[in-house]
Amino acid sequence: MTKQLPNLQVALDHSNLKGAITAAVSVGNEVDVIEAGTVCLLQVGSELVEVLRSLFPDKIIVADTKCADAGGTVAKNNAVRGADWMTCICSATIPTMKAARKAIEDINPDKGEIQVELYGDWTYDQAQQWLDAGISQAIYHQSRDALLAGETWGEKDLNKVKKLIEMGFRVSVTGGLSVDTLKLFEGVDVFTFIAGRGITEAKNPAGAARAFKDEIKRIWG
Amino acid sequence: MTKQLPNLQVALDHSNLKGAITAAVSVGNEVDVIEAGTVCLLQVGSELVEVLRSLFPDKIIVADTKCADAGGTVAKNNAVRGADWMTCICSATIPTMKAARKAIEDINPDKGEIQVELYGDWTYDQAQQWLDAGISQAIYHQSRDALLAGETWGEKDLNKVKKLIEMGFRVSVTGGLSVDTLKLFEGVDVFTFIAGRGITEAKNPAGAARAFKDEIKRIWG
Repeated sequence: MTKQLPNLQVALDHSNLKGAITAAVSVGNEVDVIEAGTVCLLQVGSELVEVLRSLFPDKIIVADTKCADAGGTVAKNNAVRGADWMTCICSATIPTMKAARKAIEDINPDKGEIQVELYGDWTYDQAQQWLDAGISQAIYHQSRDALLAGETWGEKDLNKVKKLIEMGFRVSVTGGLSVDTLKLFEGVDVFTFIAGRGITEAKNPAGAARAFKDEIKRIWG
Repeated sequence: MTKQLPNLQVALDHSNLKGAITAAVSVGNEVDVIEAGTVCLLQVGSELVEVLRSLFPDKIIVADTKCADAGGTVAKNNAVRGADWMTCICSATIPTMKAARKAIEDINPDKGEIQVELYGDWTYDQAQQWLDAGISQAIYHQSRDALLAGETWGEKDLNKVKKLIEMGFRVSVTGGLSVDTLKLFEGVDVFTFIAGRGITEAKNPAGAARAFKDEIKRIWG
């Protein structure tokens, strides 16, 4: 039986299509999941998703819309461009999440999924409501701005991640991750590690992605 | 002394540039504030903001990004395209809101402001933190998906809006508003009423906007 290793996802958080696509081409084949980042989607729109889909027909493509409302419309707009997964912000209502889920599953029945992005204050009661609504992926964040303000990964974060996994979520983690910080998660069944600049801004992005994959294999293999 | 009437803001929530711009041209001169809606920004990017700025040099332009992270980058990207106001989702961290505020004020010192979008569960303690961070506009929502699921404006909503105003926020309200529902807010110092399809999908959008303005004048004039 092959053990399922955590996935590696690269986030393309560039402010223009050229930067995002250049980065995608440099590392796309080394990762499992390619993310059209929120910053870039807000800059260039869902054409980014369409270009990524055409360049990487066999990879999982995520539209990181952080959708807060009009879930059906946003999910449809991204699914028709080729998104497999799409994110909703945790403060979205349950009807928004359900509408998003229905739309992405209707268009992409094989792979379509909604992921809840955890920002700010949320509760396990809410998390149970997401599960009950058929949303079983969650993304645990250290916000970029909070990291810049001095926050870091700690026991409190790891316990929340573990609790979400126990509840039944497949949990992605993201925020300031490097090859050196992966070992903090040893013993935790993380579903996907998401890295952005830690990969795309490296001198050798493909090499950086391979270093992440090697460390994942060493720890979880 | 002239009494300050509530503003009227039109939300352009189309899924393509053509629809948004056509709607903007049909009603832009009748309203006070023109909103580049989230759905459309995620579809076409911040070029929408740039086109609206060039068409309406004297109107307030809002980029409804519902920014959750990387506040400085997203605010800069939209401010350089001509946005006066930009929204952050309430679950964004305080560092995100501060970074967004700094970026939009740096580029647009006369009018640049951040608005907090209230979705899901938030607390008055958080609201005080937003005020302390220099964010004094809040947007009280009925989510579109919640409205479709049968929710409506009630006493509970009005009390929250009043409390936010007492705290010192200028408060916009939105979600399923029509000329007939404005009177629900009589006696409340709403800063801005936001309507989308209630105006843009009317047979005569400019007439619909004028009907909103007339009713605002009748009640608050």
